[in-house]
Amino acid sequence: MKATPVKGTADYLPSQTLLRDYMQGVILETYRSAGFERILTPAIEHLENLEKSDGGDNLNLMFKIMKRGEKLAEAIAAGGQENELADLGLRYDLTLPLSRFYAANRAKLNNPFKCIQIDKSYRAERPQKGRMREFIQCDIDILGSESPLCELELIHTTATALNRLDIGSFTIKINDRRILKGCLAACGVAPEQMDTVCISLDKWDKIGAEGVQGELESKEIAADVVAKLMTLLGGERSLESVQALCGDTEELTRTRQLIEDVRRLANGSYDAEFDLLLVRGQGYYTGTVFEIQSNKFRGSIGGGGRYDGLVGKFTGENVPAVGFSIGFERIFAILQEQGYQIPTRQRRVAILCEETEAVQAMQLAETLRQNGDSAGLYTRPKKLGKFLNRLEEQGFDGYLVYGETDQPKWFEEK
Amino acid sequence: MKATPVKGTADYLPSQTLLRDYMQGVILETYRSAGFERILTPAIEHLENLEKSDGGDNLNLMFKIMKRGEKLAEAIAAGGQENELADLGLRYDLTLPLSRFYAANRAKLNNPFKCIQIDKSYRAERPQKGRMREFIQCDIDILGSESPLCELELIHTTATALNRLDIGSFTIKINDRRILKGCLAACGVAPEQMDTVCISLDKWDKIGAEGVQGELESKEIAADVVAKLMTLLGGERSLESVQALCGDTEELTRTRQLIEDVRRLANGSYDAEFDLLLVRGQGYYTGTVFEIQSNKFRGSIGGGGRYDGLVGKFTGENVPAVGFSIGFERIFAILQEQGYQIPTRQRRVAILCEETEAVQAMQLAETLRQNGDSAGLYTRPKKLGKFLNRLEEQGFDGYLVYGETDQPKWFEEK
Repeated sequence: MKATPVKGTADYLPSQTLLRDYMQGVILETYRSAGFERILTPAIEHLENLEKSDGGDNLNLMFKIMKRGEKLAEAIAAGGQENELADLGLRYDLTLPLSRFYAANRAKLNNPFKCIQIDKSYRAERPQKGRMREFIQCDIDILGSESPLCELELIHTTATALNRLDIGSFTIKINDRRILKGCLAACGVAPEQMDTVCISLDKWDKIGAEGVQGELESKEIAADVVAKLMTLLGGERSLESVQALCGDTEELTRTRQLIEDVRRLANGSYDAEFDLLLVRGQGYYTGTVFEIQSNKFRGSIGGGGRYDGLVGKFTGENVPAVGFSIGFERIFAILQEQGYQIPTRQRRVAILCEETEAVQAMQLAETLRQNGDSAGLYTRPKKLGKFLNRLEEQGFDGYLVYGETDQPKWFEEK
Repeated sequence: MKATPVKGTADYLPSQTLLRDYMQGVILETYRSAGFERILTPAIEHLENLEKSDGGDNLNLMFKIMKRGEKLAEAIAAGGQENELADLGLRYDLTLPLSRFYAANRAKLNNPFKCIQIDKSYRAERPQKGRMREFIQCDIDILGSESPLCELELIHTTATALNRLDIGSFTIKINDRRILKGCLAACGVAPEQMDTVCISLDKWDKIGAEGVQGELESKEIAADVVAKLMTLLGGERSLESVQALCGDTEELTRTRQLIEDVRRLANGSYDAEFDLLLVRGQGYYTGTVFEIQSNKFRGSIGGGGRYDGLVGKFTGENVPAVGFSIGFERIFAILQEQGYQIPTRQRRVAILCEETEAVQAMQLAETLRQNGDSAGLYTRPKKLGKFLNRLEEQGFDGYLVYGETDQPKWFEEK
């Protein structure tokens, strides 16, 4: 049998689990305090729903679950291909299950519905530091409202949680897909070229201006259009330069106001700025998109946006929706690397006793627990010194030999 | 797209999620206080490990994950059957992953290792109330010790958690598989008949003495053996009657002492008794087995036992191990049915404001949050009365119209 976990998944030791539980606790408490309500949805989802969900690249990274029993036997006998052999899949994010949940339970929910999801998702990606095949996502979403209040609440609440986790300074990058598309149209990009041009622009940070230009040329975008794009994007890419190009659109006004409001609320505790090149991968985003950039560590530590069309795929009518997701695994990796110490921790005491003293030792343990400490029993070892060293290494704070004393001896006092 | 969750899985509404989070919090806090440490393992496991795990019936209920990419294409092209098409599976319990975890991480763990696992498992069972295909298990296990202290700690800690959850009175049934097998041998059951006889005996509660007798006869167990079995099992099945039949074995002494110790510790807060017919399904149990019976609701609400052989399948050497699992979904179903109210709950306030007041309203919300309340923003609606009724229905405790007052109006004061 194989002792290592499945590729891209991880076992977490007690100290790592403490940190993960602490992080989830801080995030959940921040979100609940801000008036969001947690829901739970299954990790297994109808394959049909996943396939139809506009999940972009994530659809190619899905773990699919085989049919069972006779249905499987029939599918194999009929020479079934991939999607005939499977009927379920592990979800690749929490947004699709939320949309399904909302469609099924709408009548029982508050409107607008402010929702928390903290749970596992799965993607068969190439694993790297902070990117796992089984990973926790922490999302807040607001469904049923078009108001820019939603974006403001989501951004500020997420930023508050991150500040409480002490991950260092960060910047919220904000864009609206319609602004970018407006600019592209103004530069002469045809509607049918929009998506492929966006895919190239998304690589600006990775391959630079020249790389993007080369890609656009190879995609046979007209030379004058490419030239206009490079002038616009090579410049300062500010809200002002967009306004000069496209005039003052509704989405521009809304985005300007949002950034201003976020900055006032942040009051210096984090930063927010316009980023014309921010696209975000998922196909389902329709308006505002945002992303969190750590100023200390490379790469995104969170992101989200408006996806006004997705819930409608279930309900048939349009339900405005916007969400923000924290990159839990990335932040966990950062905190762990920093040797982050959890601020409050229960003291741990080992009670050493003979088997014949078990009941009395357990009773003594309960009095220690009533003080808020953690206390467990261990058979009194022959070599006490070695055992105590091991306890201290393992993060115990003290011990007590039953029958000798009823107060713990703390290791720091030695 | 399908709006209902996958068969045997469930969506949980905010009020249900609050209860589930509360239950998990109580259980985790109780376990941590008793000196156990939480670990996390992936829900996806090597199919090979699952298949070799002595999981009994659970192996037939597995969700298997298909291979991906080229490997899948090759397997399909080669006319691959079920286990050639899949390489991973969803775990059916937390004991197998724990054994794998212990084998991989033993050097970094305390010895004995007292471990908490609260996480999802999956079985493609026929769903019924309190039995789901995706379900939470809450386990504590002690690895690396043969001491009966382990059984005592596991039983009392589990019982303490259940008492804190207020599920009404319950009884811990205790047996040792070796005691039952000793009795069967004394009645003349041959070694190779042991397992099939145990399977029939396990149905005693369901099909009664006559049903069991019929089954044993149909399995061609000799008439005099069946007669002896029926005399023994039709009697009071006490520790004393076992002693009279088999003499005083080590496991009998140990079980007697354990039950006595548990009763002294329980001090009337729960009951414990010997149950000669307790077998438990999993093939991997080797010694003590236990189960929790609610005195109010039918069926088991938890169970466990010693599985001294399982970890050795990974490490090659024998590691004694014992664990206890709470039937989380069953207890959740019971508490929900009772209309259980969580003892402490954050007050929830809705702040109604115009979009232009967003920043100031958010600042006011933060002062409410500092009092421990939950506060979120809502666009001020045209029909205030209807909106407030809806808030109250949804479990809000109060509201505040920004600009009119800076103190919430509580619904109960109306």
